[in-house]
Amino acid sequence: MVQGKRSIPLDMYVLLVSQNVKTLSVGSSSMVNQVQRVEDTWRTCSKSDSSGASNSGGESSKESSRSSTPVLDTDRTDRLRDKMRRRTESGDHWFSLEFFPPRTASGAVNLISRFDRMGSGGPLFIDVTWHPAGDPGSDKETSSMMIASTAVNYCGLESILHLTCCNQTKAKITGYLSKAKRLGLKNIMALRGDPMGADWEEEEAGFNYATDLVKHIRCEFDDYFDICVAGYPTGHPEAESYDEDLRHLKEKMDAGADFIITQLFFRADTFLKFVRDCRAIGITCPILPGIFPIQGYQSLRQLVKLSKLEVPDEIMRVIEPIKDNDAAIRNYGIEQAVGMCRVLLESGEVPGLHFYTLNREVATMEVLRQLGLWNEDPRRTLPWAVSAHPKRKVEDVRPIFWASRPKSYIYRTQDWDDFPNGRWGNSSSPAFGELNDYYLFYLKSKSSKDALLKMWGEELTSEQSVYEVFTSYITAQPNVAGHKVMCLPWNDDPLAPETNLLKNELDKVNRRGVLTINSQPSINGKPSSDPIVGWGPPGGYVFQKAYLEFFTSSENVTALLKVLKKYEPRVNYHIVNVHGQNTTNAHDMQPNAVTWGIFPGREIVQPTVVDPVSFLYWKDEAFALWIEQWAKLYEDESPSRMIIKYIHDNYFLVNLVDNDFPLDNCLWQVIDDMFELLDNPQEEQPAEQPNDEQSDKEQPGK
Amino acid sequence: MVQGKRSIPLDMYVLLVSQNVKTLSVGSSSMVNQVQRVEDTWRTCSKSDSSGASNSGGESSKESSRSSTPVLDTDRTDRLRDKMRRRTESGDHWFSLEFFPPRTASGAVNLISRFDRMGSGGPLFIDVTWHPAGDPGSDKETSSMMIASTAVNYCGLESILHLTCCNQTKAKITGYLSKAKRLGLKNIMALRGDPMGADWEEEEAGFNYATDLVKHIRCEFDDYFDICVAGYPTGHPEAESYDEDLRHLKEKMDAGADFIITQLFFRADTFLKFVRDCRAIGITCPILPGIFPIQGYQSLRQLVKLSKLEVPDEIMRVIEPIKDNDAAIRNYGIEQAVGMCRVLLESGEVPGLHFYTLNREVATMEVLRQLGLWNEDPRRTLPWAVSAHPKRKVEDVRPIFWASRPKSYIYRTQDWDDFPNGRWGNSSSPAFGELNDYYLFYLKSKSSKDALLKMWGEELTSEQSVYEVFTSYITAQPNVAGHKVMCLPWNDDPLAPETNLLKNELDKVNRRGVLTINSQPSINGKPSSDPIVGWGPPGGYVFQKAYLEFFTSSENVTALLKVLKKYEPRVNYHIVNVHGQNTTNAHDMQPNAVTWGIFPGREIVQPTVVDPVSFLYWKDEAFALWIEQWAKLYEDESPSRMIIKYIHDNYFLVNLVDNDFPLDNCLWQVIDDMFELLDNPQEEQPAEQPNDEQSDKEQPGK
Repeated sequence: MVQGKRSIPLDMYVLLVSQNVKTLSVGSSSMVNQVQRVEDTWRTCSKSDSSGASNSGGESSKESSRSSTPVLDTDRTDRLRDKMRRRTESGDHWFSLEFFPPRTASGAVNLISRFDRMGSGGPLFIDVTWHPAGDPGSDKETSSMMIASTAVNYCGLESILHLTCCNQTKAKITGYLSKAKRLGLKNIMALRGDPMGADWEEEEAGFNYATDLVKHIRCEFDDYFDICVAGYPTGHPEAESYDEDLRHLKEKMDAGADFIITQLFFRADTFLKFVRDCRAIGITCPILPGIFPIQGYQSLRQLVKLSKLEVPDEIMRVIEPIKDNDAAIRNYGIEQAVGMCRVLLESGEVPGLHFYTLNREVATMEVLRQLGLWNEDPRRTLPWAVSAHPKRKVEDVRPIFWASRPKSYIYRTQDWDDFPNGRWGNSSSPAFGELNDYYLFYLKSKSSKDALLKMWGEELTSEQSVYEVFTSYITAQPNVAGHKVMCLPWNDDPLAPETNLLKNELDKVNRRGVLTINSQPSINGKPSSDPIVGWGPPGGYVFQKAYLEFFTSSENVTALLKVLKKYEPRVNYHIVNVHGQNTTNAHDMQPNAVTWGIFPGREIVQPTVVDPVSFLYWKDEAFALWIEQWAKLYEDESPSRMIIKYIHDNYFLVNLVDNDFPLDNCLWQVIDDMFELLDNPQEEQPAEQPNDEQSDKEQPGK
Repeated sequence: MVQGKRSIPLDMYVLLVSQNVKTLSVGSSSMVNQVQRVEDTWRTCSKSDSSGASNSGGESSKESSRSSTPVLDTDRTDRLRDKMRRRTESGDHWFSLEFFPPRTASGAVNLISRFDRMGSGGPLFIDVTWHPAGDPGSDKETSSMMIASTAVNYCGLESILHLTCCNQTKAKITGYLSKAKRLGLKNIMALRGDPMGADWEEEEAGFNYATDLVKHIRCEFDDYFDICVAGYPTGHPEAESYDEDLRHLKEKMDAGADFIITQLFFRADTFLKFVRDCRAIGITCPILPGIFPIQGYQSLRQLVKLSKLEVPDEIMRVIEPIKDNDAAIRNYGIEQAVGMCRVLLESGEVPGLHFYTLNREVATMEVLRQLGLWNEDPRRTLPWAVSAHPKRKVEDVRPIFWASRPKSYIYRTQDWDDFPNGRWGNSSSPAFGELNDYYLFYLKSKSSKDALLKMWGEELTSEQSVYEVFTSYITAQPNVAGHKVMCLPWNDDPLAPETNLLKNELDKVNRRGVLTINSQPSINGKPSSDPIVGWGPPGGYVFQKAYLEFFTSSENVTALLKVLKKYEPRVNYHIVNVHGQNTTNAHDMQPNAVTWGIFPGREIVQPTVVDPVSFLYWKDEAFALWIEQWAKLYEDESPSRMIIKYIHDNYFLVNLVDNDFPLDNCLWQVIDDMFELLDNPQEEQPAEQPNDEQSDKEQPGK
């Protein structure tokens, strides 16, 4: 971070660095818009030994062979430029969001959860800016590379990584690109970047302009990356003239860029003229307007100074009188942005809008909401968050256990060569990576240690006080100390709307020490458009088998096993303790599909399974979370820690599946029967009711 | 066939040849029951270059790795000896059936349909006898090899091929075994066979005894085959003594045989003593009693003479007085067999019964029915007949088009290396073999040309007379000439019970030239035990999308295409003519699952798809059947032939899928709309009713 050096706010710095692209090289005028092989007038293209850089052609030809994947959503497999083209052709409007990397680790945690929230609104892509002075290609959790990788892999967002080339060696740039490719990034915003000092001069064989970087990417990585470049509606501040600047832009396109995002501007006309001028010299690719909702007086002034942009009088006239009223400024900024965006969209020249968010949510979301572009009811492609890593694009089955910890699942399977497509059994044997890295920023709790102690208890006095934490979480009621429990070690978010359907039952059983960490209701053919349980394309139907997963004491398990005999073969169970002592009535190897969907013109999709093999990997993680996330909040040897340790050492992790999805979920009855047996141990056959229910099963009342 | 030589009835010959096993070699006494590697005291085992004979170990080790197949039925993948063991351990009784190869091609057609009928009763296996003089290993449709191969591949029956070694070279025997393996046969009944002449002598390095053959199989093919050998409850007629014979049997077991089937006998005690004696000398494998229901006086006398068996007095006393009354003899035979089988089963020594059927159905089926062993309500593993070829054992998806021609499907895919497991898209690209071989016996109509002409019309006068043939078939009503139409070129059997559910609608549309050849109703979660549409293991639910496939005129198709616009995206269609002119609204590559099942503890099974690629292969076959099976019944250039030719050249083949399986099947409404449009061409928008129906779809009344 060079924040101190220029003493401008970080966000402004980012904005400027990312947009300042030197475009002074000589123009050319061939047609563009689709990617062309670079006519290599630049320098001899001698490919360096970049890992796998040359086999991208093979990959795409493989994709065009007969599909073995009933992909739910073409969007998942297309590359960004194709998605953009399809959306544009369909007359659909869309938006994208720009972020800059955070300064601190906790900033990274916050940004990742912002990605999740803003991702739900349906951006076509996000992009992450590049800070040459901030070690942007490193493995630090705050680096541009890691933030963009996390967005792709863990948040499932199509992402563009910015890259500046000024003062960089070719080897260094190729190294960044190879790493980006390895991490699953498929899109690069190719920029020159600010010269590092005042004494900057063109280097003979170096990167002097963004065009050089575009050529280098195409030379070294062929067509693997989609490349975006910057456009300047009022001309680049360092350009000799507006026309000269346009010609440089044309050069970047000719070198192989795919589309353009513009610097911000204040008047729709500025942009529309720019588009006309681009078209006139043969630039035919998508040109996305960079939208900057004004969010404060000072930041606007700084921006104006550094970017050499002129704020129009009509804006200054409104702003000056309210310059000390942040809320008023922001409201005006929203209003102004909405008005300008409307003009842009109505022009027919603008397929999508690109927002400079400055890592803030409110203004951008409000503008998008008013424009009707924010997706208020996001349709899920699958019932879990899909990773955007190209290697994972066929993945459509996962074990249910990581339902609330999808990032951990992705982390632990990141080294897999194949991902299961269609059925879990087709995956290579599920060798899960170890999870000892609870400190990883995308796995860390959003809450601080203090906040966690408030939620989970400054001091625990008994197992019962643990039960109460679970109950508070389930019911969203404050705990004894008056704090709401917003998360548990196994779930960093409040109860999902779907789980909320089970709230009353969950409350009841958690009070008695059936500590639930994962559950789903049975669903017998709800429309795929259902706001709570729906997923997949329209016109389909989704189904679920009821699932319940919980920790409970060994006394409870003894009773439960007796009770479960009456539910054969309707209920499948797996019961295991931390030492791996394992009891099940399920087939050793055979996964049980517990979520599936039927869609028009497609094969069946079964995205969630209960897999007996994976469960034992999950078991290790689920037990470890007691210690890593909870016990370690307390002093060593403290009674609180000992209580958690006791649970960890002695409780069992249980999962139950009710196979008879058309009937009412019987799992609550199973738990009730267990409690009844515990309460009345002498009468071990408490009424024949469950057997009656079983005989119903053969002829469900359909 | 050597029928003339000995002038005994063919069936008697078969019976004797197959049971006459010389067992005069020296005994040994190590433990048996599971397959052992041969202690090769016999001759040097120098493996010949038999194709793939040595890699069986690799195959089975592969099977033991983590299952990638949610196999519905363990029975499908186990080898015969394992099935037998599991059934025996579970205390389940079972039966098997012995057949001999037919003499004529039409006999082969009849035997194959007998396999289908008797296979439905649930035999654990069938076996096919071997006739050294009848070219038994050839490709002739009457050879033992081809009959057994057909039973395995096309009828889905676990089968044992008999093999006799007397007077054969090792190379010849190895050739037979390699061929059997290549054809998918996994079980051999190892027999010596009758010497070919009276001057037979032991050969130094040849096959003199069944033991030699057992050793040879184990030596050349390792553990690939399950091996059965013959046992003689009263001692082999050529054996020096009963005890000597028992020792020879022990030798066969020690050489690597897996189980024993006995020669027939007339008293339960004979068999039970034999089993005790076997156990006493260390034979621990399953010993299956050979049951011979007496079916006629003459055949019994012949048998007695040739086999040197003694018919007990108590049987002769009953039979002699009724010797001219075939029905009475058969009834007695049934009664006698049932009584004896009851004693055997109740003894606890008999896990299963082996029946010498003499290729007849009635007596054996009646005995099995009375014993309660005949499966009156066979559960289908999948909704189509599963092939028993070991290579196909993972197969659980097929295109719907061959639903009524499963043998043709198996024939056309016999060269595939992989079969789809779980989803159709996972198969290698579906390159179907050509089907020019309509003469193949397992593809031929059971009916003669004369019978077909009676059913399909001695003379056709118009397309309408073709429509009437279809209607007669659908309604099972006699045609104008008073003959019932029991089959059509696309379906050699009467309407399936499931299709019968659609009879009224099918009748109505066929009358107007919508010539249906394949259809299924929609099913929304019926129990897997449903007698009509159920399949798969108990406790599950089966589903279907409605499907309709028909030929119709191009005028109809023009109207249909207009109508179908109103049913987007609810209805997927493919419409193609013989020239390949193809219209569809479905994804080019994506199969549509139209039958699926949900079962306890398993992944989803989706055995039937509408696959756009395969449909074009099926189209060729479906159109060709007009010519090959129907037009060719008539003289060249005859009006009847020209009418069929006209339909072949001008009609379209249409398939329709109603994706909205929870709603009432809309495909009849589609056809109605088409007729309405044809009847009232001016009003091209005949009421908005279908649109209303479509809007219903979004919220089905569940």
